[in-house]
Amino acid sequence: MKRATSTAPASHRNEMRYNPATGRWVIYALSRRQRPREMVGAGEGSRAEPAYDEHCPFCPGHEQDLPPVLLEYGRGDSPWQIRVVENKYPALTPEGDLKRVCQGIYMKMEGYGHHEVLIESPVHNRQIPAMTGGEVEMIVDAYHRRYLELIRLEKNLLVVIFRNCGRRAGASLAHPHSQIISTGVVPGHVREQEYRAQQYFDQWGSCMYCDMIAEELSAGIRIIHANRSFVSFVPYAAAQPFEIWIMPRVHKAHFGDISAEEKADLASSLHAMLRRVQGRLNDPDYNYVIHSSAKYRTDEPQAHWFLQIGPRLTTRAGFEIGSGMSINTSLPEEDADFLRSDPPLEKGGRNASQA
Amino acid sequence: MKRATSTAPASHRNEMRYNPATGRWVIYALSRRQRPREMVGAGEGSRAEPAYDEHCPFCPGHEQDLPPVLLEYGRGDSPWQIRVVENKYPALTPEGDLKRVCQGIYMKMEGYGHHEVLIESPVHNRQIPAMTGGEVEMIVDAYHRRYLELIRLEKNLLVVIFRNCGRRAGASLAHPHSQIISTGVVPGHVREQEYRAQQYFDQWGSCMYCDMIAEELSAGIRIIHANRSFVSFVPYAAAQPFEIWIMPRVHKAHFGDISAEEKADLASSLHAMLRRVQGRLNDPDYNYVIHSSAKYRTDEPQAHWFLQIGPRLTTRAGFEIGSGMSINTSLPEEDADFLRSDPPLEKGGRNASQA
Repeated sequence: MKRATSTAPASHRNEMRYNPATGRWVIYALSRRQRPREMVGAGEGSRAEPAYDEHCPFCPGHEQDLPPVLLEYGRGDSPWQIRVVENKYPALTPEGDLKRVCQGIYMKMEGYGHHEVLIESPVHNRQIPAMTGGEVEMIVDAYHRRYLELIRLEKNLLVVIFRNCGRRAGASLAHPHSQIISTGVVPGHVREQEYRAQQYFDQWGSCMYCDMIAEELSAGIRIIHANRSFVSFVPYAAAQPFEIWIMPRVHKAHFGDISAEEKADLASSLHAMLRRVQGRLNDPDYNYVIHSSAKYRTDEPQAHWFLQIGPRLTTRAGFEIGSGMSINTSLPEEDADFLRSDPPLEKGGRNASQA
Repeated sequence: MKRATSTAPASHRNEMRYNPATGRWVIYALSRRQRPREMVGAGEGSRAEPAYDEHCPFCPGHEQDLPPVLLEYGRGDSPWQIRVVENKYPALTPEGDLKRVCQGIYMKMEGYGHHEVLIESPVHNRQIPAMTGGEVEMIVDAYHRRYLELIRLEKNLLVVIFRNCGRRAGASLAHPHSQIISTGVVPGHVREQEYRAQQYFDQWGSCMYCDMIAEELSAGIRIIHANRSFVSFVPYAAAQPFEIWIMPRVHKAHFGDISAEEKADLASSLHAMLRRVQGRLNDPDYNYVIHSSAKYRTDEPQAHWFLQIGPRLTTRAGFEIGSGMSINTSLPEEDADFLRSDPPLEKGGRNASQA
């Protein structure tokens, strides 16, 4: 990558800076301060939402205010069932340049990338646990199509698909949605995980994640759910209570390589896990994220894509910030046991289905 | 370190497990579920606390319920001004063993370490901004004395001093206090920062942090405050709004090597920064943590201890979890400019002084 030098202070608003002490890139996206935050002031924990909110930008009737639609699925008599649009307040934009610019001893570049929103339903309060299996499959299919579209673009090196649900999980809008961000860099965090998996492979001659699946199936005590293609478990060293990893049984580094059968099975696993999280843990806020290999590492024998769910039941505090170690007040085996049982039938709350 | 093998499920309650995928140790401390959480249910943001709370375990009158006192400072007519006690609900305990135990493909060990609480004042609502300079100096002196005491113990490899203030920052009690945790491992997170500083040193022949101080003093635009011994600034690639690093001007890897003059100046810088955070940012919850070198790296030319303050104004969400990158909606130069001005005189709120 060519280097340029500048001592001028930052003037444009979307940029990325590299912190040489932490090895982390940070995205500066000042325009995101202006985004609507309908959930500010709401109480924590479960809250009832109506089926339609006239002020919600994702509810039907506001289509003209949204950026252009990138992907749309129809269903029955609804004008649309799922829509993927550009984020109106993007963290990264496709106009950015990847040229690094030195500022004294530091380094920055423009905020290149894509930032999309996947609106999962026209119904304001139809969260995933209340959906049908077919609706969740459609979401997974939309993830896959956007993933393939973005990762093939020359400058994109990583695509992150994630869902923030609830204010404690960083969501600013209640309407069911996921987000997709592509970046033109592979962050150090991802490289470190690659490196650990590489070391394991070089040492043991096998994929760490494949070995983990075999170990979990053999031990059994941390498994919550398994189907034809996926195993869902609380990891042995879960960093927080009720963390869940949904792992494909067949080794694939790259989410882009998911098969049609796996898409149906991922939807089924995700649906089952979110219903349990909701039903057994009193409808907590949560994040989930799909970890997949960076570009050019998509065929590696040591990387293995998976989906991680993290209910927001605890708070990262000073010790975690200083040491990178977590303090977990809950044992993975007990958490798995608790989630393994069938969820109670629930009505109302954030996941009420009124569609 | 000797290895032992066990396939039995975990039976004791304080243990540490290593996650080979993330490279992180996780502490399992189930007893911490029982600790009092007086702040549960409190609203977010600033809240008024009384000068005395009869239910608070840290207020005078509950001394007999506390674990043995490790260090105590008196002052005037108060029976005590600062006390350091063992944490009644410790994440780690000195009885633990560092012997690694294999569990299938995984690894764990007992939860060895020390976990102390530093009660900063007998007055329930006397937070740092409301204290006198002399009181803050006493806190810094107590940090230093406990740090030296803990790091000299053979099995301790790292000592982390931190303060969680407010519920969003992970605090369960409102009474002014800090915590000190020692561990018998150096976590990967700390090793990665060491490695980055080492690479910088090997490349440039100088300490990255010393160069950062020089760069910040020369640029000026991110400096908030400077005195004889410390420079306080918003880092160039701050991961969150209004993050502050307080850096000693003189190169020292190890907080244990702080001089008497530096202790007074650190207290003065910390006091000034927390007053500005409180006064300018509407009394947010925050964490601070002292980053210091691990044992056996205390004389290295590339490590440099510092104190990091992080106001809890934003939420870590799915993209951060997946990529390790942060999205910051605020520019460091603007944040520094905002904090640089003198804070308004404030009365009431969490920092009311009624002593």
